[in-house]
Amino acid sequence: MSCGQVYSPSYKLFKCPRCGGLLDVEISSKHWAPKGIGVWRYASMLPLKKGITLGEGATPLVKSNLAEGLYVKFEGANPTGSFKDRGMALGVTVAKESGANKILVASTGNTAASAAAYAARAGMRCYVVLPRGNVARGKLMQAALHGAEIVMINGLFDKALEYVVNYGTKYAYPLNSFNPWRLEGQKTVAFEIFEELGCPDYVVVPVGNAGNISAIWKGFKELAELGLCNKLPRMVGVQAEGAAPLAEAWERGLEEPLFVDEPRTVATAIKIGRPINWPKAVRAVKESGGFFIKVQDGEILKAQRELAQRDGIGAEPAGAASVAGFLKAKLRGVVVAVVTGHALKDPDAVEISAKEVRNADELMELLEK
Amino acid sequence: MSCGQVYSPSYKLFKCPRCGGLLDVEISSKHWAPKGIGVWRYASMLPLKKGITLGEGATPLVKSNLAEGLYVKFEGANPTGSFKDRGMALGVTVAKESGANKILVASTGNTAASAAAYAARAGMRCYVVLPRGNVARGKLMQAALHGAEIVMINGLFDKALEYVVNYGTKYAYPLNSFNPWRLEGQKTVAFEIFEELGCPDYVVVPVGNAGNISAIWKGFKELAELGLCNKLPRMVGVQAEGAAPLAEAWERGLEEPLFVDEPRTVATAIKIGRPINWPKAVRAVKESGGFFIKVQDGEILKAQRELAQRDGIGAEPAGAASVAGFLKAKLRGVVVAVVTGHALKDPDAVEISAKEVRNADELMELLEK
Repeated sequence: MSCGQVYSPSYKLFKCPRCGGLLDVEISSKHWAPKGIGVWRYASMLPLKKGITLGEGATPLVKSNLAEGLYVKFEGANPTGSFKDRGMALGVTVAKESGANKILVASTGNTAASAAAYAARAGMRCYVVLPRGNVARGKLMQAALHGAEIVMINGLFDKALEYVVNYGTKYAYPLNSFNPWRLEGQKTVAFEIFEELGCPDYVVVPVGNAGNISAIWKGFKELAELGLCNKLPRMVGVQAEGAAPLAEAWERGLEEPLFVDEPRTVATAIKIGRPINWPKAVRAVKESGGFFIKVQDGEILKAQRELAQRDGIGAEPAGAASVAGFLKAKLRGVVVAVVTGHALKDPDAVEISAKEVRNADELMELLEK
Repeated sequence: MSCGQVYSPSYKLFKCPRCGGLLDVEISSKHWAPKGIGVWRYASMLPLKKGITLGEGATPLVKSNLAEGLYVKFEGANPTGSFKDRGMALGVTVAKESGANKILVASTGNTAASAAAYAARAGMRCYVVLPRGNVARGKLMQAALHGAEIVMINGLFDKALEYVVNYGTKYAYPLNSFNPWRLEGQKTVAFEIFEELGCPDYVVVPVGNAGNISAIWKGFKELAELGLCNKLPRMVGVQAEGAAPLAEAWERGLEEPLFVDEPRTVATAIKIGRPINWPKAVRAVKESGGFFIKVQDGEILKAQRELAQRDGIGAEPAGAASVAGFLKAKLRGVVVAVVTGHALKDPDAVEISAKEVRNADELMELLEK
């Protein structure tokens, strides 16, 4: 996408051999023929016509009680509890087709959980490189349960990703979001929104490594190319204040992100200081007429609580960041907030208080109030 | 179902006013007209034509790699991560229609999480009565996140349920599985299996309080009544060895369960010694020509691991009990094992081991092996 060089498709191309930049996938034969359920329902729009599946996609689109016009796309209802499953269905299929037998990812946790599950399904080995102390408990458990080799580093996600990009691709198939094939799976969320709702006015997405917002935008653009919708949504990228390289730069009118060396936020899934897909995310936001916005941890946790207590939707903190961004930006019209991961991913992010009763009388007293 | 008395429908009838026994719901106007997606797709088969939803149902049916003919119905992909959501969509709708503003459940955790989420969605208050120290971490977090009032008792689930049944129904709407309206939602899993696969030879279900197996059987019977399938599946109920009142009685040829005062099992969701729906479960198993079987905790954890590492499906221990039962019984033919809850519900049930790397060289060394 930087130097303009075009290559014929290869599952082993992850970055441009000429300039080292990101690659875009262009599906020349695409046509709209949805059939079945989930990600593979949109095979006619994908680079592969079938592949590995755990029943990912077909997630709930819930009309929110929080604001008029707000809909929540709840990606926590995917098989491993996050939107990553859409990409991994494609990505692991591509990895297998490429002849690889090992998969490698750096991760804040959700990518690791998903890669581990889909690699297991495909009979492949999986290595996940994680930043020690910065992965929510549920995600770590998932990687272990699905039999991945867990590799811890001292350092944050950005360092783990550097290892994968610079050293790992020689030995294993990398499935971080710089892999353009994986993003093809993630674009299907746009197709599902389109089928249920048409094209909304805004789509709001939490931004960590910045792959998902560009994938979703690609999905909508492809619908427009095929003449299926004539008005595209504006893409809104939400970052946590302590990990906001794109939102900070946007506010100051800069062309390049303000990378953050020590990102801080309770939303571990978007605790990323140097998002590798930033050029794609900036393109998506600019082309669509959208914007980036940053929100405080307190706003994220408040959005998580509101979602849970008024809509009945359990989001992990990063997942609720989209709703926090929506509330802060006071958007009007038809808005879809993508809630990217399940509350169960991060059980330690919620305080628990309980009452104790010693007998039935005490219970009845409590209920009578 | 015990004394044969028939009542006209009331959402406030939970047990037979004459004999105190369980009630069956009979839908006289039912017809087969699936439309839409999820539980409400089957509105024409339900007592209500629409109601509260979080996008429950439409869960993945995954062809297993563990054995020829085995399919896994992964109920962990429901909005709160367990099959309970199907029932709560109906149950909370009914509660609201009845004019109640408080919902009450005893729970080993999944019912609490689901009731809390659906009550939040409906704008109702929710009280959950839990056995202290016997609820998996994820589930407790969910109840708290969704704003339920958490009430702890010293004692196990059976005592919590006794409180609800004997004292709670005066003050709040009870949504444990003795409430026959809730079970109407749970029967929809049969409809989904039928639409994807026809009628399998066996359906294998973990058995705790014994509502789900009877709900699923009711679903299949209704399909047969309408002439949609002419061969019904055999229902197999799986219990953990330390909490096996029905499986023990079945093995010994007894008519009544051998209640267990101190149930023990790693599978907390089925750690129930006095299943309230036992007459319905026994009826389902007998009518269908199925059986009960018990499995050891070690077999449950092994099934959990196999499911995760060969199929890519993350189940909580109780959820994997169905697969453990399938493996133990060596079933042949087309078999659907219902995996009732997500691995993320119980992050502490999995051991985590990790390697550490200090630099890129060490990572490459690891990957080269």
